[in-house]
Amino acid sequence: MPKTIAIACDHAGFPLKEALKKACGDRYRWLDLGTNSTDSVSYADFGEHLAKAIGAGRADYGILICGTGIGISIAANRYAHIRAAVCTSSTMARLARAHNNANVLALGARIIGAEVALDCIDTFMTTDFEGGRHQARVDKLNTGL
Amino acid sequence: MPKTIAIACDHAGFPLKEALKKACGDRYRWLDLGTNSTDSVSYADFGEHLAKAIGAGRADYGILICGTGIGISIAANRYAHIRAAVCTSSTMARLARAHNNANVLALGARIIGAEVALDCIDTFMTTDFEGGRHQARVDKLNTGL
Repeated sequence: MPKTIAIACDHAGFPLKEALKKACGDRYRWLDLGTNSTDSVSYADFGEHLAKAIGAGRADYGILICGTGIGISIAANRYAHIRAAVCTSSTMARLARAHNNANVLALGARIIGAEVALDCIDTFMTTDFEGGRHQARVDKLNTGL
Repeated sequence: MPKTIAIACDHAGFPLKEALKKACGDRYRWLDLGTNSTDSVSYADFGEHLAKAIGAGRADYGILICGTGIGISIAANRYAHIRAAVCTSSTMARLARAHNNANVLALGARIIGAEVALDCIDTFMTTDFEGGRHQARVDKLNTGL
């Protein structure tokens, strides 16, 4: 059973969202929360949509895309159940899962290309959280601040 | 009058914190919130310390360093007055200031080297927020989620 990934972006991220969904084929089940054109929107709205979808149990993981990945990830990280990781390489995606138990991958469409983004996604979706000494740190992100 | 930058890190970021403070000389005034050794600590605690220092008006800007910049920035971004940007290049640092009005730069000591980090800092500290169409998006990050 493929995992469900919620995906959301702003206008800067729209072309990369479409390219990534197509390139991944049916490896994942997608919950596409938009945006669905290059008309100007706010990354803050789409980071919020994705955070709420994961909070409602509609997806286990999320991918967010804006120009840099920064703005849309800050919006999502306002929610305590979201750990959104801005990654520019599969190395970062691996460590975000292994050490931070990140549940959202944030990508910058103006920073990395589609092949780097695909490697980030595949690494993110296949790396397990290590737990152990990392558990208490992640617990504090969720509840203790 | 040099600007005051609060700086905080975990054990993974400690050597880079020391190197960056030394390399920047007296270009900035530093509010060093630790950690001050390579003994294991939690990035979540140090992200929180920095967020509270900025909230209290002890510094205008912040720099956070952990292994990737991801965990410590998530901790800081739990606070509505913090816009912490994980950057792996000066391009990202420029856009984080120009578009997101980021007030905290988050760096990964296991991802980028000291020269890249220095370029990120100098770009971050010399780039102004563009305002305009970006203002409402930033306002929503601060208050609207």
